[in-house]
Amino acid sequence: MSWELHGSDLPDLARGAAVLGTGGGGDPYIGRLMVAAALRESGRPITVLALDDLADDALVVPTAMMGAPTVMVEKIPRGTEAVAALRALERHLGRSADATMPIECGGINSMMPLVVAARTGLPVVDADGMGRAFPELNMETFGVYGIPGSPMVVAAEHGETVLVDTGTDNRRMEWLARGLAIRMGGAAQIAEYPMSGADVKRTAVPATISLGLQIGRALREARAGHVDVVRALAAEMSTTAYHEVRDILAGKVVDVERRTIDGFTRGHAALISFDGGQRLDVDFQNEHLVARVDGVVRAIVPDLICMLEADTGDPVTTEGMRYGQRVRVVGISTPDLMRTPEALATFGPAAFGMNVDFTPVEQLNPA
Amino acid sequence: MSWELHGSDLPDLARGAAVLGTGGGGDPYIGRLMVAAALRESGRPITVLALDDLADDALVVPTAMMGAPTVMVEKIPRGTEAVAALRALERHLGRSADATMPIECGGINSMMPLVVAARTGLPVVDADGMGRAFPELNMETFGVYGIPGSPMVVAAEHGETVLVDTGTDNRRMEWLARGLAIRMGGAAQIAEYPMSGADVKRTAVPATISLGLQIGRALREARAGHVDVVRALAAEMSTTAYHEVRDILAGKVVDVERRTIDGFTRGHAALISFDGGQRLDVDFQNEHLVARVDGVVRAIVPDLICMLEADTGDPVTTEGMRYGQRVRVVGISTPDLMRTPEALATFGPAAFGMNVDFTPVEQLNPA
Repeated sequence: MSWELHGSDLPDLARGAAVLGTGGGGDPYIGRLMVAAALRESGRPITVLALDDLADDALVVPTAMMGAPTVMVEKIPRGTEAVAALRALERHLGRSADATMPIECGGINSMMPLVVAARTGLPVVDADGMGRAFPELNMETFGVYGIPGSPMVVAAEHGETVLVDTGTDNRRMEWLARGLAIRMGGAAQIAEYPMSGADVKRTAVPATISLGLQIGRALREARAGHVDVVRALAAEMSTTAYHEVRDILAGKVVDVERRTIDGFTRGHAALISFDGGQRLDVDFQNEHLVARVDGVVRAIVPDLICMLEADTGDPVTTEGMRYGQRVRVVGISTPDLMRTPEALATFGPAAFGMNVDFTPVEQLNPA
Repeated sequence: MSWELHGSDLPDLARGAAVLGTGGGGDPYIGRLMVAAALRESGRPITVLALDDLADDALVVPTAMMGAPTVMVEKIPRGTEAVAALRALERHLGRSADATMPIECGGINSMMPLVVAARTGLPVVDADGMGRAFPELNMETFGVYGIPGSPMVVAAEHGETVLVDTGTDNRRMEWLARGLAIRMGGAAQIAEYPMSGADVKRTAVPATISLGLQIGRALREARAGHVDVVRALAAEMSTTAYHEVRDILAGKVVDVERRTIDGFTRGHAALISFDGGQRLDVDFQNEHLVARVDGVVRAIVPDLICMLEADTGDPVTTEGMRYGQRVRVVGISTPDLMRTPEALATFGPAAFGMNVDFTPVEQLNPA
């Protein structure tokens, strides 16, 4: 069912999207402020369009921010760049978009299409192309299931737009667009994977804006009700396509090594459990990629690895991790659509250079 | 007067263009082979259009290769990329080009528009936008005199095209296009500075294809007639807009330090005169930038600094310089159009980070 998103929904959505960001996707805080400002300006809520209400012949143009999360928290967009990207792509296609949507439901990119929607009056499709956040533009379920990412547009704050056309080669699109984002200061706004409503229904992860809101609300209520945050999250997720939640570690961050390199935030964190008995190592490229406890893999892409502040339940992003932080680390299963052989070839462990097979988090951590 | 260019003209043109390349612009050898192949395929000569014969309302789209000369000699184009760039720009502009032309008359870019012309049947305007070679796309007389370089297209060998639109900001265009060229392997093909025939007449350096041919012929005849190559070059240039030629050093290359970095070939060479009495230091970024004899500036951008093999008179490029090479080094004055305050602001010493004022080569080396 389609619904209306109001400014009052934004804190919950931002919190939930940061969980689905699996450490990356950029802190939604700035995006949330941008949506709030755009909503105040437009004076009307945003229509969030359920897949059932999306016409098969609609033109859908996903919009997003790309870049290193470490940069995204410092280089604040003007707010007009993503609309400029959308408009430039529309001119190239010779057709107006009927809706926009998120490329990923995690982090700041849960918010950027809402900024575009509030500024243009377009509805936002309640679905996304990653079912979480991933660092690269080729890592989208759209592409996994045959949609070319290009023609796409990269835009930045000086009014420049760059139209990238790599045919059906989504990896090359990512490579060139990343080079542009780097030269644009490490972050840029994009419009990509233009496609029909029918293709969205076939390739997107459904209802993930609703899911973000639902998770954010559950975490807020858990905190207010002094309910264990991991227990509350597990209960909430059990009825969704992300039904397995596993408690991996409760402990303290003892080391973070983080570099902004090649347009990404890459690094490693080490945690020690509160009882001192276990060590957790996490590698990340924008998002968390793999979590090992005492050397044994306990969760790995594309499953979600999420850190929550132990006291508040607030999600912690990879660029926000600090020495001494007390966190809960959980693994969450991804929908079946994201665990097929085609999906794993695109964003499984090997796509990140890891010589480890994907094993579902529920198998790595039997109940 | 317009004229026809035949395959038999190419060796002279390549030699002359390498002189005008002032060490850079890429070795014209590969480009020459590409033009020869395209001419054989088309079976007709290329029309070289004099400015007088160019309609004011014609659409002219300059075409070129961009990249580090060290890469350009290794990464050989398919030959279709520049045409693809031209076509993509035409589609964006909604209008077909009436002619192409060189962005620079030096090096491989004397040849690339000829490849496009032979493959498309378009004429080539006898003029260019640098009057030599420069490393950056914003360093064109077109831009100096008010023409925006964008919209422009960067294309590479996998069929990808990227349309860059930075409005009137030609430096930002260069910055983004360079980033793309780097990600395309260090060299790419471009179509840029689309403009009217009237704008070409107002902003281009005229008749530089003819000039390249004339220089190449003079050097060939000097060699055949055992005439001193610098004397022959000076005699030939004396009736052109590049009328001052100065003998700077006859000597041996004793050191070359060269890096392919940031999409450019940067470095430094040291030479000692044959009599051992003088040392010449040359800095380059693709092209030679400044020549100092015993620490004193003797020629500096935008004036030309050219090295010719002492025995043959053949031009030596910055990527071709080798320890032990015996060369003649000359400075050549540039046309007045390239020495105005606006021109010097765009491609004078300060544009290359040098804290030295431009002084004409004829003042640095009184006759």
